[in-house]
Amino acid sequence: MMAMVVGASRRAAGSARRWGLIRSISTSGFREERDTFGPIGVPADKLWGAQTQRSLLNFDIGGVSERMPDPIIRAFGVIKKCAAKVNLHYGLDPTIAHAIMQAAQEVADGKFNDHFPLVIWQTGSGTQSNMNANEVIANRAAEILGHKRGDKFVHPNDHVNRSQSSNDTFPTVMHIAAATEINSRLIPSLKTLHHSLHSKSVEFKDIIKIGRTHTQDATPLTLGQEFSGYTTQVKYGIERIMSTLPRMYQLAQGGTAVGTGLNTKKGFDVKIANAVAEETNLPFVTAENKFEALAAHDAFVETSGALKTVSASLMKIANDIRFLGSGPRCGLGELILPENEPGSSIMPGKVNPTQCEALTMVCAQVMGNDVAITVSGSNGHFELNVFKPVIASALLRSVRLLADASASFEKNCVRGIQANHARISKLLNESLMLVTALNPKIGYDKAAAVAKKAHKEGTTLKEAALNLGVLTEEEFHQHVLPEKMIGPVEV
Amino acid sequence: MMAMVVGASRRAAGSARRWGLIRSISTSGFREERDTFGPIGVPADKLWGAQTQRSLLNFDIGGVSERMPDPIIRAFGVIKKCAAKVNLHYGLDPTIAHAIMQAAQEVADGKFNDHFPLVIWQTGSGTQSNMNANEVIANRAAEILGHKRGDKFVHPNDHVNRSQSSNDTFPTVMHIAAATEINSRLIPSLKTLHHSLHSKSVEFKDIIKIGRTHTQDATPLTLGQEFSGYTTQVKYGIERIMSTLPRMYQLAQGGTAVGTGLNTKKGFDVKIANAVAEETNLPFVTAENKFEALAAHDAFVETSGALKTVSASLMKIANDIRFLGSGPRCGLGELILPENEPGSSIMPGKVNPTQCEALTMVCAQVMGNDVAITVSGSNGHFELNVFKPVIASALLRSVRLLADASASFEKNCVRGIQANHARISKLLNESLMLVTALNPKIGYDKAAAVAKKAHKEGTTLKEAALNLGVLTEEEFHQHVLPEKMIGPVEV
Amino acid sequence: MMAMVVGASRRAAGSARRWGLIRSISTSGFREERDTFGPIGVPADKLWGAQTQRSLLNFDIGGVSERMPDPIIRAFGVIKKCAAKVNLHYGLDPTIAHAIMQAAQEVADGKFNDHFPLVIWQTGSGTQSNMNANEVIANRAAEILGHKRGDKFVHPNDHVNRSQSSNDTFPTVMHIAAATEINSRLIPSLKTLHHSLHSKSVEFKDIIKIGRTHTQDATPLTLGQEFSGYTTQVKYGIERIMSTLPRMYQLAQGGTAVGTGLNTKKGFDVKIANAVAEETNLPFVTAENKFEALAAHDAFVETSGALKTVSASLMKIANDIRFLGSGPRCGLGELILPENEPGSSIMPGKVNPTQCEALTMVCAQVMGNDVAITVSGSNGHFELNVFKPVIASALLRSVRLLADASASFEKNCVRGIQANHARISKLLNESLMLVTALNPKIGYDKAAAVAKKAHKEGTTLKEAALNLGVLTEEEFHQHVLPEKMIGPVEV
Amino acid sequence: MMAMVVGASRRAAGSARRWGLIRSISTSGFREERDTFGPIGVPADKLWGAQTQRSLLNFDIGGVSERMPDPIIRAFGVIKKCAAKVNLHYGLDPTIAHAIMQAAQEVADGKFNDHFPLVIWQTGSGTQSNMNANEVIANRAAEILGHKRGDKFVHPNDHVNRSQSSNDTFPTVMHIAAATEINSRLIPSLKTLHHSLHSKSVEFKDIIKIGRTHTQDATPLTLGQEFSGYTTQVKYGIERIMSTLPRMYQLAQGGTAVGTGLNTKKGFDVKIANAVAEETNLPFVTAENKFEALAAHDAFVETSGALKTVSASLMKIANDIRFLGSGPRCGLGELILPENEPGSSIMPGKVNPTQCEALTMVCAQVMGNDVAITVSGSNGHFELNVFKPVIASALLRSVRLLADASASFEKNCVRGIQANHARISKLLNESLMLVTALNPKIGYDKAAAVAKKAHKEGTTLKEAALNLGVLTEEEFHQHVLPEKMIGPVEV
Repeated sequence: MMAMVVGASRRAAGSARRWGLIRSISTSGFREERDTFGPIGVPADKLWGAQTQRSLLNFDIGGVSERMPDPIIRAFGVIKKCAAKVNLHYGLDPTIAHAIMQAAQEVADGKFNDHFPLVIWQTGSGTQSNMNANEVIANRAAEILGHKRGDKFVHPNDHVNRSQSSNDTFPTVMHIAAATEINSRLIPSLKTLHHSLHSKSVEFKDIIKIGRTHTQDATPLTLGQEFSGYTTQVKYGIERIMSTLPRMYQLAQGGTAVGTGLNTKKGFDVKIANAVAEETNLPFVTAENKFEALAAHDAFVETSGALKTVSASLMKIANDIRFLGSGPRCGLGELILPENEPGSSIMPGKVNPTQCEALTMVCAQVMGNDVAITVSGSNGHFELNVFKPVIASALLRSVRLLADASASFEKNCVRGIQANHARISKLLNESLMLVTALNPKIGYDKAAAVAKKAHKEGTTLKEAALNLGVLTEEEFHQHVLPEKMIGPVEV
Repeated sequence: MMAMVVGASRRAAGSARRWGLIRSISTSGFREERDTFGPIGVPADKLWGAQTQRSLLNFDIGGVSERMPDPIIRAFGVIKKCAAKVNLHYGLDPTIAHAIMQAAQEVADGKFNDHFPLVIWQTGSGTQSNMNANEVIANRAAEILGHKRGDKFVHPNDHVNRSQSSNDTFPTVMHIAAATEINSRLIPSLKTLHHSLHSKSVEFKDIIKIGRTHTQDATPLTLGQEFSGYTTQVKYGIERIMSTLPRMYQLAQGGTAVGTGLNTKKGFDVKIANAVAEETNLPFVTAENKFEALAAHDAFVETSGALKTVSASLMKIANDIRFLGSGPRCGLGELILPENEPGSSIMPGKVNPTQCEALTMVCAQVMGNDVAITVSGSNGHFELNVFKPVIASALLRSVRLLADASASFEKNCVRGIQANHARISKLLNESLMLVTALNPKIGYDKAAAVAKKAHKEGTTLKEAALNLGVLTEEEFHQHVLPEKMIGPVEV
Repeated sequence: MMAMVVGASRRAAGSARRWGLIRSISTSGFREERDTFGPIGVPADKLWGAQTQRSLLNFDIGGVSERMPDPIIRAFGVIKKCAAKVNLHYGLDPTIAHAIMQAAQEVADGKFNDHFPLVIWQTGSGTQSNMNANEVIANRAAEILGHKRGDKFVHPNDHVNRSQSSNDTFPTVMHIAAATEINSRLIPSLKTLHHSLHSKSVEFKDIIKIGRTHTQDATPLTLGQEFSGYTTQVKYGIERIMSTLPRMYQLAQGGTAVGTGLNTKKGFDVKIANAVAEETNLPFVTAENKFEALAAHDAFVETSGALKTVSASLMKIANDIRFLGSGPRCGLGELILPENEPGSSIMPGKVNPTQCEALTMVCAQVMGNDVAITVSGSNGHFELNVFKPVIASALLRSVRLLADASASFEKNCVRGIQANHARISKLLNESLMLVTALNPKIGYDKAAAVAKKAHKEGTTLKEAALNLGVLTEEEFHQHVLPEKMIGPVEV
Repeated sequence: MMAMVVGASRRAAGSARRWGLIRSISTSGFREERDTFGPIGVPADKLWGAQTQRSLLNFDIGGVSERMPDPIIRAFGVIKKCAAKVNLHYGLDPTIAHAIMQAAQEVADGKFNDHFPLVIWQTGSGTQSNMNANEVIANRAAEILGHKRGDKFVHPNDHVNRSQSSNDTFPTVMHIAAATEINSRLIPSLKTLHHSLHSKSVEFKDIIKIGRTHTQDATPLTLGQEFSGYTTQVKYGIERIMSTLPRMYQLAQGGTAVGTGLNTKKGFDVKIANAVAEETNLPFVTAENKFEALAAHDAFVETSGALKTVSASLMKIANDIRFLGSGPRCGLGELILPENEPGSSIMPGKVNPTQCEALTMVCAQVMGNDVAITVSGSNGHFELNVFKPVIASALLRSVRLLADASASFEKNCVRGIQANHARISKLLNESLMLVTALNPKIGYDKAAAVAKKAHKEGTTLKEAALNLGVLTEEEFHQHVLPEKMIGPVEV
């Protein structure tokens, strides 16, 4: 065993790349932990055990920034607590059960994040993170009961992992983490954004402006109407995400190794889903089919599909806002965006639509993550999909980034958007597409001739119309009224 | 004008690339058609007009195989018929209205597909295909009324396109085509596949086999359980697609150029949505917000997200089936797949899982189309998304391919799958993972030792267990019973 | 056998979906063809045989528009001709060899396209299309020699497919088709586009205009400089594609079933690569490792990566051009784009940047195809990747669409772009970012104060600068000279 | 100003989400820093200034794990050092220049990583990270010269950022970081993997095994040949990446704000590229066209395309290896993979191909990142692409993950792979596809009959062949020799 420890140290010393992982390893010495592969040295001040340590050595991929995301760790706390609670019902020693529950709650509270050093890029079932959770909770529970770390008074497999397999536990943790993050973080951010866009839509309801289709001048609408489109996109985005959750609320727990529920008792699956629902206040249920729940992560592929739809919406909205706010002198200039910081390190006084930029960058990453999740979801084999950690981490990253970027965009941009009334008015009055109002009066072909003449000669529509003799000045004024062009005609 | 016709001919002669498009153009001479750009020669035996002809010349991209998909053309027939019906209510001359309705019905019936020569790669609003529909229907309606093609007795814009813009019509057509194809083609295919997988699940319910996780031997399950996972995936796939349809049933019609409904009458939007619903027997409604309905195609991005989720499911299922059917002598060999054709041009007697291959290839293309649709959906500007034709064609292709490939897979593969009982039984009995049943009896660590010993020494589990003295032969037989390992323990 | 034919007819009658495939099947009766699965009826006027017919029945996916692309069929003609030529050298009967060569040349010339009815969605090795080629050529060669179709005087496997397997032939055909299409179609289109953009860059070299970063006003540049960026993107795009070709020029032929070259003679692989090189005038060589050449299609994944890079470039260029040409009154309006067709079915006189739209739609599809190809390329197993047809068809479609859309964009847009001098000049003079020229004189902080003051008060930079007293009018005019801001300072 | 600091504190206190960012902010009080937006409080023990602080407050997106990657920070050190060196030549005060160079070197050495708190999701030009670098280096240089932080004795814009803009500096930093990481990290890992696969190919060169196509039994090859395919894939992967580097070595520096080089001196661009080349020992050159270099990041899109090609290769290889190593009793079992850790928390003794799993998960993420980068690369506008940080971070993550996962896979899996001779031999001898060797002797049709008979009756090929009377026993043994089936026939 000593050789292994020394080996580990030598590796650490010799490899700058390992600095990130090793940095978190105590210098306060090592204790011996043991698994079915034999003994191994573990940092004395850490709660993890042999299998975690082995994973650290075997998966030196990406460094600390690639660690399993926090929501996964917290969800492990939740599920292990619930498992102990249900196992208590099925005969687990109450002393041990309560110690596990206490330790698991501490994990759920984020107290032991530093004891979860493993990266995403490990075994594809998340087994090593499950064992990390089992080991940390077992050692912590043992300590609570006055025992030593590593003595397995509380056994990571036989007690903490009782009636569980990584194969049902990790998917359960994935679903808990995703549903929690979506409900607590993403939906609220989107609702705030929706509210803010709606407020702007109301605020701008009487400002008539030129419409643009194909990026070319078109018939008018109100700025409020334009913002109502954005509002609706976000509203539907929320609906889209919510409509995927019924399948996200299905938990695999109780399927154990291959979905059959071997080594569980009848009813375990329903009881633990209830316990999780109670613990999280979310409507989790046991998965209708555990084979599907282990072997596929279609629920994640589906939800990711909704997230990338929201990204497509937000990219459109942010793009519009930056173009409508472009200028200050040589752009469209219809919106005035909040100035939050200096825009350029070389161009003094420049202010940029930076919130739009951050948001659209997030959207691009979410679209990419969707492909990563889809490829991963399609690659399961037989009883198990072994792309679980990448699926979980990519989705959780998408959720977090969309949530935070939407919130930032709302707070630092949308909320402070002002209309540039003078500019909007000037552009509207110069436009040629007001000619469309003449279609019902003089027909499409003559109306086209008027617009083309005005465009060619640089005149106003009225001048061209009168010059062509297609209607009188009075008729022109009667028909070409922007305020009458922003809705259907009353019958 | 003659110069243009001659020019067109010369181009045709000189450019092999144009062969595809020109092939479909009559040699029976040309007639003159005219639009706001002036006169242009059009093949005399075709119903289309000037704008269609101009598009043919301006968008020589991809040849005949890139023509706008049939479902789009049929949907144009539907919407133009409905528009005439509603316009009749609002004062359109009844003679003209009824001629338009008759002509539009013929388009909806696919009678004039050869008169829709335009490719997907045209203006991004689908304006040219809308004008193609307007021109064909106007000319056909004129003929019905005893007039000549090209004389505009029925005017493509003022009559056929009345109260419409391409900007609301093309999205409406997109939604009609997609919802129709999904309901009439894809859902039935998936339901048949679901039914067939479910039947197999029942048929195989008593066949106990080895499970596989990480592609490695695991604890047993029944072949029926394994197929129940696939069944569930397809069932949820249907739910996923259906749950996106509420937004697909929203029609943009009535928004006209920018969403305001300019040049329509109050109520037009609701009436036309009702007419389409009646015509198609699908629950179409008018879009709650027309600005969103023109400027974004989030509904397509969302539905495509559901389609790629189904693709991920089907890829997993087809992969499993080909691996479980691999062999005949050197693979897993648990399934016997139908033999439909010779498998190899060099290896005599070879039979391959070709239906799995066709299906997984389709799945890959659907995943790719999803990215095309997402990128396109995110790139709208202001009042209009101008990636409409690519969004529509990519989604319709995904729908069609998934529908047909699922049907083919069901009929030519799933339906005929047989279990290889002898092989399944042999593998099950050789497995080491039955050791898992001993966990509750002797604990994880000792059970691991048994399995490792058997593996190392190439013996059976029982031999290793007895040899290690962890339990008696009687106890072994009492606990290691595959038929007791396929579900939770009764309490 | 009759039962099968009748069955086929009944299916045809009963299924509207099959119309497309059946349409191409003669009514002139059936003849019997035979393969290792037994006899089957084949349309008498078609050259294909039993295996093609079986595939038609087994893969009813997508209809005629999903047929294997023409360049694949032509490449089959090339490889079968070359194979006969080399086999002649190795002892194939000269009479048969020459008949095969003649028939294959006819296939290469596109004379028998209608005899290749199979769709992309078949066996993943393309075996059925290879057999389609073998059968058509065998029957045609037999006819040339005065024999009957179906009598196998020339045998599809033993003669036409001699020393070949689908597993090496189809990848060879893929490489021939892709390399040919890239060289004959895509590169010329991109070169023309590059030339046209470069011409514009030269034409516009003296037009100074406002720059835009973050869509906001920035320091000036010339319109020629702006176009030089586009020119460089296209130039590098050509380099990118060309730099992937060395691996595309490697042919799998000679690897036969699994890469070993079983049933070929030593030297066959080199000889046939030489023959193909001679036939196509492209530098094809035999693949250095045949195992890689059958089991992976990394060369296609790589080339597709280059194509999507070109798509990203073209999307940027086309977006810029439509925004710079936006207006005519309410956009940026710096460019005047050619007017090719009426832009709107409702807004008279509207002209839209439709060529930009067609091109950007193509770019989105190419990005999607890249994902389809990547997913497919990653999913090979053991000695064979069985996503060959989707990989080939997606790449060929990307090549064709990029080629045609680039050509259309060049001809119908870029070539006719004009600068709107008055507008460009007006915007430049109103800009505030000319202040950047003052940095070296008065420092970033003071320059910022000048710009902010001018912006806030709506004045010119000069007014603000003098008002703040940071320099004299003379100094201002000396430093703020747009024509001195478009390059580094001479030392 | 105090209000702002208090505000920041209140936010910190009130928002658990901000914990990550705030954690890194000292409790040792604040000092005042100032930019063109006015004063702001900055943690006293941090070197950053006002603009960094403002970005921290304005972009609360994702927390600490979303910070700009380390290689970007180190590259900022490199470029700022080189800029000072070249500016010295052009007249920058030598005292200040040398202090900047010293401070920048410390940044390049990673000494101040904690002073770079900004996240990826900021302004799309990376301006805020550029200012972060300018501020840290300015303050550090000031300290070196005995001045106080924040007094701007060394000015972040006028001195550190001299002759630079974020718009040319950030792309330069991107290219330096990417090229460095690729050369120092990824290529070496791939070379090691290539070497290891090649060694296995040689080690296994005499082991004849069954081939598999369509996952079905096929003709034999050697295990060494099979591994030679993998070896070639990795070899070409290295070539693919290297062939994109010529465009990655082009530096934007010298283009300043829009590509014109305003506020630089003639020759600055070439000199600084030379300085970077010298500093990094990589062949950097100044970009041929600075407009392209700012407005597009095609070089990243291209290199990412090569990375995803490598991912497709590695996914194929890792998939093969896990399937060939599947078992131990119920899989293919031809390979014995190293056992590195316990495989299951419920199934004792299970060992899983975890290195394959980590690697394939990485491949999926790299494919996703490629889409993120492509979408981002296509979305530049006018003189600037403002998706720079997401492009840089996604590519750097792909490079790092591929490098580390390849290294881990090589070390913990490939290197230790052993052939399971007994199993390989058993499968080979049972196979039916050895019949292919009879094609040249008895023809394809008869050979097929032999294989089908043996398959149907469960006999050996020989029995079937003799029974059908197609050849004698002697002839059979003469032709069906696996060792003669692994290459072409000598002529």
